[in-house]
Amino acid sequence: MEITSYLRFSFILFIILFLLARSWYPLSKPGLLDCSQPVSWCTSKNRIYAKLGSILETQVPKSKNHLVETPNHPLDPLTIQEINKVRAIISSYAPFSSSPAIHYVSLEEPDKSWVLSWKKGDPLPPRKATVIALLNGQSHLLLVDLDLGRVSSHAIDEGSGYPILSMNDISVALQVAMSNADFNKSIIARGVEFSDLACITPSAGWYGPNEEGRRVIRVQCFSSQGTPNFYMRPIEGLTVTVDIDRKEVVKISDKGRGIPVPKGENTDYRYSTQEKPLEMEPLNPISIEQPKGPSFKIEDGHMVKWANWVFHLKADHRAGMVISRAMVRDSETGELRSVMYKGFSSELFVPYMDPDESWYFKTYMDAGEFGMGVTAMSLVPLNDCPRYSYYMDGVFVDSNGKPYVQPNMICVFERYAGDIGWRHSETPFTGSETREARPKVTLVARMAASVGNYDYIFDWEFQTDGLIRVKVGLSGMLMVKGTPYQNVYQVPQDQNDMTGSLVSENVIGVVHDHFITFHLDMDIDGSNNSFVEVNLVKEETLPGESPRKSYLKAKRNVAKTENDARIKLKLYDPSEFHVVNPSRRSRLGNPAGYKVVPAGNAASLLDLHDPPQLRGAFTNNQIWVTPYNKTEQWAGGLLAYQSKGEDTLAVWSERNRPIENKDIVLWYTLGFHHIPCQEDFPVMPTVSSSFDLKPVNFFESNPILRAMPNFEKDLPVCGSAASS
Amino acid sequence: MEITSYLRFSFILFIILFLLARSWYPLSKPGLLDCSQPVSWCTSKNRIYAKLGSILETQVPKSKNHLVETPNHPLDPLTIQEINKVRAIISSYAPFSSSPAIHYVSLEEPDKSWVLSWKKGDPLPPRKATVIALLNGQSHLLLVDLDLGRVSSHAIDEGSGYPILSMNDISVALQVAMSNADFNKSIIARGVEFSDLACITPSAGWYGPNEEGRRVIRVQCFSSQGTPNFYMRPIEGLTVTVDIDRKEVVKISDKGRGIPVPKGENTDYRYSTQEKPLEMEPLNPISIEQPKGPSFKIEDGHMVKWANWVFHLKADHRAGMVISRAMVRDSETGELRSVMYKGFSSELFVPYMDPDESWYFKTYMDAGEFGMGVTAMSLVPLNDCPRYSYYMDGVFVDSNGKPYVQPNMICVFERYAGDIGWRHSETPFTGSETREARPKVTLVARMAASVGNYDYIFDWEFQTDGLIRVKVGLSGMLMVKGTPYQNVYQVPQDQNDMTGSLVSENVIGVVHDHFITFHLDMDIDGSNNSFVEVNLVKEETLPGESPRKSYLKAKRNVAKTENDARIKLKLYDPSEFHVVNPSRRSRLGNPAGYKVVPAGNAASLLDLHDPPQLRGAFTNNQIWVTPYNKTEQWAGGLLAYQSKGEDTLAVWSERNRPIENKDIVLWYTLGFHHIPCQEDFPVMPTVSSSFDLKPVNFFESNPILRAMPNFEKDLPVCGSAASS
Repeated sequence: MEITSYLRFSFILFIILFLLARSWYPLSKPGLLDCSQPVSWCTSKNRIYAKLGSILETQVPKSKNHLVETPNHPLDPLTIQEINKVRAIISSYAPFSSSPAIHYVSLEEPDKSWVLSWKKGDPLPPRKATVIALLNGQSHLLLVDLDLGRVSSHAIDEGSGYPILSMNDISVALQVAMSNADFNKSIIARGVEFSDLACITPSAGWYGPNEEGRRVIRVQCFSSQGTPNFYMRPIEGLTVTVDIDRKEVVKISDKGRGIPVPKGENTDYRYSTQEKPLEMEPLNPISIEQPKGPSFKIEDGHMVKWANWVFHLKADHRAGMVISRAMVRDSETGELRSVMYKGFSSELFVPYMDPDESWYFKTYMDAGEFGMGVTAMSLVPLNDCPRYSYYMDGVFVDSNGKPYVQPNMICVFERYAGDIGWRHSETPFTGSETREARPKVTLVARMAASVGNYDYIFDWEFQTDGLIRVKVGLSGMLMVKGTPYQNVYQVPQDQNDMTGSLVSENVIGVVHDHFITFHLDMDIDGSNNSFVEVNLVKEETLPGESPRKSYLKAKRNVAKTENDARIKLKLYDPSEFHVVNPSRRSRLGNPAGYKVVPAGNAASLLDLHDPPQLRGAFTNNQIWVTPYNKTEQWAGGLLAYQSKGEDTLAVWSERNRPIENKDIVLWYTLGFHHIPCQEDFPVMPTVSSSFDLKPVNFFESNPILRAMPNFEKDLPVCGSAASS
Repeated sequence: MEITSYLRFSFILFIILFLLARSWYPLSKPGLLDCSQPVSWCTSKNRIYAKLGSILETQVPKSKNHLVETPNHPLDPLTIQEINKVRAIISSYAPFSSSPAIHYVSLEEPDKSWVLSWKKGDPLPPRKATVIALLNGQSHLLLVDLDLGRVSSHAIDEGSGYPILSMNDISVALQVAMSNADFNKSIIARGVEFSDLACITPSAGWYGPNEEGRRVIRVQCFSSQGTPNFYMRPIEGLTVTVDIDRKEVVKISDKGRGIPVPKGENTDYRYSTQEKPLEMEPLNPISIEQPKGPSFKIEDGHMVKWANWVFHLKADHRAGMVISRAMVRDSETGELRSVMYKGFSSELFVPYMDPDESWYFKTYMDAGEFGMGVTAMSLVPLNDCPRYSYYMDGVFVDSNGKPYVQPNMICVFERYAGDIGWRHSETPFTGSETREARPKVTLVARMAASVGNYDYIFDWEFQTDGLIRVKVGLSGMLMVKGTPYQNVYQVPQDQNDMTGSLVSENVIGVVHDHFITFHLDMDIDGSNNSFVEVNLVKEETLPGESPRKSYLKAKRNVAKTENDARIKLKLYDPSEFHVVNPSRRSRLGNPAGYKVVPAGNAASLLDLHDPPQLRGAFTNNQIWVTPYNKTEQWAGGLLAYQSKGEDTLAVWSERNRPIENKDIVLWYTLGFHHIPCQEDFPVMPTVSSSFDLKPVNFFESNPILRAMPNFEKDLPVCGSAASS
């Protein structure tokens, strides 16, 4: 079985190991577990708690055959065949006589000029792969030329950072921790059965020289007794620091012995285990229906065509979902016009607000440390995405360089939410009887990454009026902290040890932030664009000029260099932020542009010299603009794991390069402060925020002026489901 | 025809007058029009441009018989019978021997204690009506007791403000202007045919003593030649100031003779006149389908019951739509718990940013000057609201005290937009295969007010997780200014006369703001609540305490008096804003609460001493909290028209009353800055923003944990429409 669905494989493996383990290990008699020998059970322990049948089965999924896939577009991701070829090339590559660990394999996208000039039917540009591998503690960056069948460049990165973690790293870390006698003793001391143990591997962050020069990771554990939602049952204060490459424990911190493991009752969220109905009137079936099917087409696997939009969509190991070559058809001329060359979530920064020994390091950079694609599991049909969704798979690479399929990880669907595209009525005040309205129908590309406890739902929503809404929803579980307190009355008045809210008995939801930084390579009608801040300034009238004392005036400032485009949003000094093509003018002479329109947002307030903020310095502003540079894709640096922050967007921007009338990249950071509350327990109702990319003098006039209204005669005729 | 649908009547009237006018007035020969005699044509001119068949007919509307309606709930609006009774009482009221002009008749809501103790089946509390009438230039405030059949109190307001404008005021203003010889000459000089004239009546604002002591209004006109969208064809710089009560022209300003009337081409937005299809792939039919019907019930005309929500919904002349007694069922105990006693849009403030003689006064207070209910026209089925919507009528009162029906002005519908209520997947990192997700279904109450050119779409959206989202969408037409410039190259470099963007040839979209201030009388589990600011503060660690230098800590500050609760939102000094019931604690001891969660917002930046900002001082902060006071409903004052701002929320708050553990009202202002662009011409794609009222430790845990997922077998079976 050379090629396999990784997930299916690991699931089968789990069942085998689970059965083996149960027959092999006396679960009823907890005792010291000897994992000093490489016993398969030790690596599989983390899977013990999984219960069969816990996947919500709502619809029979369709499967696709990726074995025969070939690339059709210069930006198409590597196919299974190509990944196998990369693996073959590397395995015969002389400098890698001892097998390196593969951490990242992805298409090396051709130069922009290649892509921009390519047309359907043209031969593809040379196919190349970027490979990041670890060997003897060093990060190797390789470029593999698939057509020439050889490694065409090879560099060793001397920076502080390491590549994205692999599944193998996680397994090693768990195995090392679980083989450790002191760790085992601690678990016993806490009264947790080994069979109930579920452990996670928080990344280490970087906190000065102590842990530099080697790859370290934390291991923290939970009890899954009586619940699959082990996140709510922390074994507080027990942290094992593991050197991944040396496979050794660096340090064990065990300071929470007085803290009980919180109870498991009422934490199971699975449908299959629910018995008591909710206290609410049941809802009748409701569905977005499209009896003629959706209006979008997906050509050649990745080109999405809908209404007036065309874009390339793909799954990515690190970014999760990448939108490329987004183009909108001009409503008047029919011309297909460029809006964005590439858009994706470049990095996530999630600092927790607790200086404790077991918590201070929790300052995740989820894309660069874990990957948003590899953690984006199959979406649940009819619940994660509506009926008539199209599901796209990801094809990724495991630590051995083998390809695997992440099925149904992206969905594309057409949405009608009852909203209004535009409307106008006349009233008796003007005497007319005009009443016009148009429904708003949009197209959504969605993915949900489950980075451990948290779930990040990413929506790219395209509107026919040219607007793109980028929305991030947060759900999943809180990262919680055990506490001796059962209720707030027990908490001492000064509350010095409370770094969050009590969300259940013995459970603190620790305060934290989420920042998602988007790379938005806007190409408005071509690559050369400018960034314009349109500042609204209070003007005072002269005496006698007007009965008004003041009014606001819009003042345009074109950013010359990166300095001019580092923006902190200000409610009381507001601006619009345009990316315009100074060479493409409307008939009135206004430059064609798009503006980034913030909605709710939050800023990082950490000390700028705090180590996590140095690494997360790309959140120091909400907006940045950089000149396009192919190597500047990842806001937290290419090798983000344990990095010191020498390769972040903030560092690049310091060069203060010219950005006027250049190929520029807009960066926008969407932030959330999260002070947990009881409603977030044991799983959080989705919280979301968004920002818009909105045309501004891009079209000559409202592009949906002539959009069709809905009429009764056109709507579907529906009956209840057969089962009812 | 004692009782009538006002709209239908005015439409029939228009047709009669239109035909009369055409046969009576030589439309082809423009000349001086003598309106010095009260000729009906002069008052109907404004209706001349209306074209038959301009109402988008998408579905056959249902009509209701309001004649037999009786009130069922203490908060039910006055019925037609009750309004007629009010009218009869007033007409025989001795002090009103000469008929006053009726400006506002509405239910005088019973005291809160009455309403709170009332249960279905109980007799209703005494029915009373508030009447605001104008007589001899004075505002009379009357309380009419319907049970006793008499005026029970009568006061004359001595403040600066006047009541909401009536349709009669508008007619008078137009008639006065059109009867004026100088005005007529100006129209002829501009080359506009009288038959094409369409005029609007901007409110006067207040700008010092010049216009005090009398009711004044502006009249500005447009050409409707070739388009129903006359708003895009201003006769720039021609402003007539009219004394409404004396029926005389105060002043004519005519400074824009050099400015051409912009062209009418491509401004007609009506479906019936569109010929060229849009340059986009057509969309297949898409609809929110509910073959078993929606899950909500509307009992006794106004009580909405859906899922775990119950609330009272009604139309209001001034506020538009009022939500009362919003209660949510506790997911565990089944208890129906109070969330909000009353919520509505209390005032809108819309300052334009142009100090010109014809523009400086455009600083509307749409609710208090025009009314959001009376300007909320019938919604367009399938386009303004989806299929399966329930439509609610408004019953309002005209200037003669007669009732009329505003049909289908509110819609209620259930929404499924493909969104996710909550979700979680486990990844190979933790080894489990769990995948769970729940669809998000919500209930929306919607209204769209067309205050002249602008359309304000109000959505109150109720979620099963207890969240209420209040959303405002802006659509309709820009208020535009004529300019000699056809393109930006003609604009002098200093651009001193450009107070907005060129959105079409000779058309400037003037910069402006919108502020919508909501009155949110939160009653979390009872009336006595406190306002808590939960401030996120950066804490610095002590040397050696932690590898971290900083973290954020949530600090709770309970507001003692109104001073403590005047909030300007700050990105870099963030807080959460809770309304809690200090006496109602969760099992953990957290006080039950709701927080107001801002999304995108904008602040007023006008000089605090600028007259419009004095009147709009309720926008000086985004959040205010006041102790409940039945008379403090309207943020801009009860009598807002031409008021000086002596009766605003800002003035009330100055009293700095205690608000801790009191019956309190939360005020939130949602703002928009609008720098127009070409896409806003000739009708704007909807722009929206929102804020949330979100439970915070109100429920013991996630209230939708046990919500049902969607399964294929439960969904509807649909076919294409019969017509296809």
